[in-house]
Amino acid sequence: MAKGFLLVISGPSGSGKGTVSAALMAKHQDIKFSTSVTTRPPRPSEVDGENYFFRTQAEFERMVEEDQLLEYAFVHTNYYGTPKDFVFSEVEKGEIVLLEIDVQGAMQIKEKYKEAVFIFLLPPTMEELKQRIIGRGTESEEDIKTRFSNAFKELDFVGEYDYFVVNDQVDQAVEDIENIIAAEKLRVKRQKNIKEDMIRKGELD
Amino acid sequence: MAKGFLLVISGPSGSGKGTVSAALMAKHQDIKFSTSVTTRPPRPSEVDGENYFFRTQAEFERMVEEDQLLEYAFVHTNYYGTPKDFVFSEVEKGEIVLLEIDVQGAMQIKEKYKEAVFIFLLPPTMEELKQRIIGRGTESEEDIKTRFSNAFKELDFVGEYDYFVVNDQVDQAVEDIENIIAAEKLRVKRQKNIKEDMIRKGELD
Repeated sequence: MAKGFLLVISGPSGSGKGTVSAALMAKHQDIKFSTSVTTRPPRPSEVDGENYFFRTQAEFERMVEEDQLLEYAFVHTNYYGTPKDFVFSEVEKGEIVLLEIDVQGAMQIKEKYKEAVFIFLLPPTMEELKQRIIGRGTESEEDIKTRFSNAFKELDFVGEYDYFVVNDQVDQAVEDIENIIAAEKLRVKRQKNIKEDMIRKGELD
Repeated sequence: MAKGFLLVISGPSGSGKGTVSAALMAKHQDIKFSTSVTTRPPRPSEVDGENYFFRTQAEFERMVEEDQLLEYAFVHTNYYGTPKDFVFSEVEKGEIVLLEIDVQGAMQIKEKYKEAVFIFLLPPTMEELKQRIIGRGTESEEDIKTRFSNAFKELDFVGEYDYFVVNDQVDQAVEDIENIIAAEKLRVKRQKNIKEDMIRKGELD
């Protein structure tokens, strides 16, 4: 039996990582979405352990101290993080766990969990990246400049990733990631006992 | 522009590496077959630099001394080897070079050229492996025993490979290898200048 893996889909603002991840999940019901821990209060429809693991700030801070998170960030007024427990137990069961995350979060994970599969997503050109950031229409000119300048700086981290996928057409990017998943499933390092399995499956003289 | 890579398809006797490699080549004319150096005299139809690089024994031995070969072996009365020059220059041009080779040869390459992509091929069971060795019909009972025992020992080297492909149906094994090739093309380490390319392709403010 083979182990699964954590698939980290990442890239700067405007890379389309959210759209591509959603399209991938829609096609592959068997991929598990990584469930985050947060200190944000649950909304009426949200279920603990399903949408998020909802924790108090004290609980979250203890998780940080006890190194129970693969990465975390403080966003606006709340903490968000990726619990090791959930990811590791799913991976051990053979599942593929998808985590869509910004470059800073991915770099935190890389430090703690090199065994994850890291994909860096980018639009085909910087101009396209800029258009996508502008295209959101929700940001001020100042915000757009900051986002674009950050995206540009984040290109320096691509060398830390395993794969580089150009997100020109979403369908093509999804197909590239499907190929990566198929290949990663065949990795020797994730097979547990190749020789033992072969022996068990066939009688020897 | 991305670099290509050397794809090493390997496995013990009876793994079907020859059949799978031929089926893969037949489907993908763009994959280059690695041309070997040999001291065997050319047959009338054979062309130097196409079927083989034909060399004298003295020339071959100098190549060994000068570390110009990724691997070599003495088979029956002749030397056979894989020239670095050919492989490296094709890889630099962006080509995928296929080399089908036994486990010992693959381990020699692994020592000299870790950047190659190593695939270990096996039938689904040891029983099936044995049947395939017997099925050739050209070997004595003693030879079959030796081949089978060697194949069994060679399973210990699977940990040195990148990928493990079960060759139950040839078509499925070829498809697995196609997925590996597609994924390996997306590897960050083979991209030359991701950031520079992005900048060149789009104007910056």
